[in-house]
Amino acid sequence: MAYIKLPENLPGIRGLMAFRPETAKPLNEFAEILLRSDDNTLTRGERELMATYVSHLNDCFFCQNAHGGIAQHYLQCDMEFIDNIKADYEAMPISEKMKALLQVAGSVQRGGKHVTPEQIERAKAAGATDLEIHDTVLISAFFCLCNRYVDGLGTEAPSDRQFYIDRGKMRAEEGVRSF
Amino acid sequence: MAYIKLPENLPGIRGLMAFRPETAKPLNEFAEILLRSDDNTLTRGERELMATYVSHLNDCFFCQNAHGGIAQHYLQCDMEFIDNIKADYEAMPISEKMKALLQVAGSVQRGGKHVTPEQIERAKAAGATDLEIHDTVLISAFFCLCNRYVDGLGTEAPSDRQFYIDRGKMRAEEGVRSF
Repeated sequence: MAYIKLPENLPGIRGLMAFRPETAKPLNEFAEILLRSDDNTLTRGERELMATYVSHLNDCFFCQNAHGGIAQHYLQCDMEFIDNIKADYEAMPISEKMKALLQVAGSVQRGGKHVTPEQIERAKAAGATDLEIHDTVLISAFFCLCNRYVDGLGTEAPSDRQFYIDRGKMRAEEGVRSF
Repeated sequence: MAYIKLPENLPGIRGLMAFRPETAKPLNEFAEILLRSDDNTLTRGERELMATYVSHLNDCFFCQNAHGGIAQHYLQCDMEFIDNIKADYEAMPISEKMKALLQVAGSVQRGGKHVTPEQIERAKAAGATDLEIHDTVLISAFFCLCNRYVDGLGTEAPSDRQFYIDRGKMRAEEGVRSF
């Protein structure tokens, strides 16, 4: 049971957003721009993969599955692909730029000062722009917020991972408001 | 020097917000509601003290001093008081409710799952409402975002702590947009 009294039947961050719509509104607008705006050279699938990876590092079950389900929809991949990215993205058939950005995202998850000039150089050498590096850092930092928000208040969420995959398509189409 | 090319002479998060105004707008609106709305039983000073404490735990020089300066203004205290809160808030002359909420904020900083039922019980026994507990968790989570954003991109900031105190009053009056 969550640590505070939340509206029922809304898993993870959804119950928190219904509890506190004043802060949910700008937070949703922020997520919409950062994760879904088409005015971005990182695809929606790449951004959702970053969100999934960071949520995995933070051991947040709800966020890593909710965003894993969306990533799966955008990337048209299976759950095994997502799980392999979490386990060892360096060994996966993704671009060198994406590997370098996932490395930066992983450093940010541990703390801002874990990012090194060498990691940034690797990303730039692989073709990452300043804006892509910026958004990678901000996406990782944002999920360090979301993961703490969801778990810090002890929210509940369905334990069946298929639940999130079934909802991935709908959430991908409707945006963060449908979480 | 920051890892990406930022507008000059804007320290810490300010340069990042000028670099990416699309994400800065909802993020500032969120901060304004969470930290400054008067429709909150936590005072602005208490909320800024939480922000300062979490930023200290994340070792973010810019954020802990920027928000420490604002907290000092609201609480009408000196820098020594702020530093003593960071070092050992349990020994300080603040309310039991505030001590319990700072404990929750500190747990959230380490990760959402570090919050325990006992910590929540302590806060409730000291009179904390569900909304106050919610906002404490969200403030801590938000500064886990801000601290990583500021340090993860290697931003620069004045090293003289007095700089932030001198600006605290102005920032308190003008809101987060004047950071």
